[in-house]
Amino acid sequence: MGEFELIRRYFAAAACARPGDELALGIGDDCALLELPPGEQLAVSTDTLVAGGHFPDPCDPFLLGQRALAVSVSDLAAMGAMPVAFTLALSLPAADPQWLNAFARGLDAMARQCGIRLAGGDTTRGPLCLTLSVFGRVPVGQALTRSGARPGDLLCVGGRLGDAAGALPLVLQQEQADPALAEPLLAHYWSPPPQLALGLALRGKATAALDISDGLLGDCGHIAAASGVALFVERERLPLSPALLAFAGREKALECALGGGDDYVLAFTLPPGELAALQAGADVHVVGWAEQGTGVHLLDAQGNEILAGRRGHVHFGG
Amino acid sequence: MGEFELIRRYFAAAACARPGDELALGIGDDCALLELPPGEQLAVSTDTLVAGGHFPDPCDPFLLGQRALAVSVSDLAAMGAMPVAFTLALSLPAADPQWLNAFARGLDAMARQCGIRLAGGDTTRGPLCLTLSVFGRVPVGQALTRSGARPGDLLCVGGRLGDAAGALPLVLQQEQADPALAEPLLAHYWSPPPQLALGLALRGKATAALDISDGLLGDCGHIAAASGVALFVERERLPLSPALLAFAGREKALECALGGGDDYVLAFTLPPGELAALQAGADVHVVGWAEQGTGVHLLDAQGNEILAGRRGHVHFGG
Repeated sequence: MGEFELIRRYFAAAACARPGDELALGIGDDCALLELPPGEQLAVSTDTLVAGGHFPDPCDPFLLGQRALAVSVSDLAAMGAMPVAFTLALSLPAADPQWLNAFARGLDAMARQCGIRLAGGDTTRGPLCLTLSVFGRVPVGQALTRSGARPGDLLCVGGRLGDAAGALPLVLQQEQADPALAEPLLAHYWSPPPQLALGLALRGKATAALDISDGLLGDCGHIAAASGVALFVERERLPLSPALLAFAGREKALECALGGGDDYVLAFTLPPGELAALQAGADVHVVGWAEQGTGVHLLDAQGNEILAGRRGHVHFGG
Repeated sequence: MGEFELIRRYFAAAACARPGDELALGIGDDCALLELPPGEQLAVSTDTLVAGGHFPDPCDPFLLGQRALAVSVSDLAAMGAMPVAFTLALSLPAADPQWLNAFARGLDAMARQCGIRLAGGDTTRGPLCLTLSVFGRVPVGQALTRSGARPGDLLCVGGRLGDAAGALPLVLQQEQADPALAEPLLAHYWSPPPQLALGLALRGKATAALDISDGLLGDCGHIAAASGVALFVERERLPLSPALLAFAGREKALECALGGGDDYVLAFTLPPGELAALQAGADVHVVGWAEQGTGVHLLDAQGNEILAGRRGHVHFGG
């Protein structure tokens, strides 16, 4: 038995790899078998993370395991889906038991937090690279897509923006900060909690939704284009964390929120009448609205259209 | 828009990426959405192919596209599942339009041959590497697993063995052969037809099944171990193609069939009473049987247990 066959057995022994619920058959056969309750659809998403591109190399393998799964499950949250199972294709240069042990523990911790099971995967030798496919379930007709925003809808986000992008100098160990500031920022980078409860709460309410992975302006461009509306974003309403403001200052914090990426916070459009009930149970911030037109438009405190941060995102799709 | 975003749009425009049948929502949202007919389960498998390891580098991108999907869909055939959809995570060093065009055409050709749709994926920069997740559907309780073989069952294969392994010197251009010999061998390596019809025919009949990817003896070891039986293989009964025998000679052909890999032909166990009806509609060869015991045992023409080919597979799990 080769070392990579041993690794496969190692993952198969993880707590999150036990069959149960919708995972009828797990690791060990040609395929895993998933079941769906009647009237539900399966939501599927695939993401690849490459060392040195999507995460620093080297990095803490426990944190990498957590982050890789969190980032993928965030796509299920954005569809309003409940997590069911995932597969992991792991390419790594050598089978280091310590590295694998820590990675699997991080993966398992996030899997249990999200209620998702490891259904299978593959392990190959190569540069460190991870591809995760995640599977969730959602009642037919209730999935949140990007294409339903209508003029008059509010544009909202499910939490503070920019923390992960603001944390990058800390992640890359290019800067240091007081632990009281560094810890919440690093935590958001390494372990962004998938907003699954918010996704469920948005079913039947939000008209469009996605998770912000490339910065608010860029991702809102996807909603604007898919829905055929213009989205207006008021810069003064962007929710920013005290830690980010203290570490980066207001200008840089706004840049991180508008174009920084890695937030994995939901952005969504909502008829105004739905807002109050939603805000009673979730951390929801209105940051703008939808109108007839195209593109994403950033407004200053006086309501004038301005250029966005230094990444230069202005009129996505407009 | 970056070049990799352009690639994503390129795949999204492929014929096999059009939603339809069980693919309710395809490329372009946070998740794709799949539907399952009532009473069916979803079969899921993930495979990674690394350049230089799982296929020669460089190689013809059209053939690579065909082969990558065929190899993955073979896992659905082995479960008795009908193909539904797949995702593709493609890592490549540069976005070469000619390469991508040919690769996508090969992928699309195999997708149409198998009746499977591209549901999504990811494209990243890195060494050439592909991870495919394939999804199929199978009625609850009818999936073919590795664990049901019983003493007295026949051990069968769904076609000739060893062609792909025999083709390797041709694939790697280390040897040449008359086109009449080279073409069928190369065709089996680059485009092994997933045995989907056979998988369906085996539902409710085969007691265990898998697709042979690592050589008959090694893969039979998985059935023996999962089912808790001994499997006996009669070397003289292995079906070998005229092309392989002519190109490689009998001894080398047997080695390829027993331990060579890349066949993607189904191996399965079957109660003897099921054989005649099955053989009426499919190219099925009996190569041995199951008994109480453990491991895989190779027998010569006189019924004596012998060592296998030079790869030394003898008593897997025994």
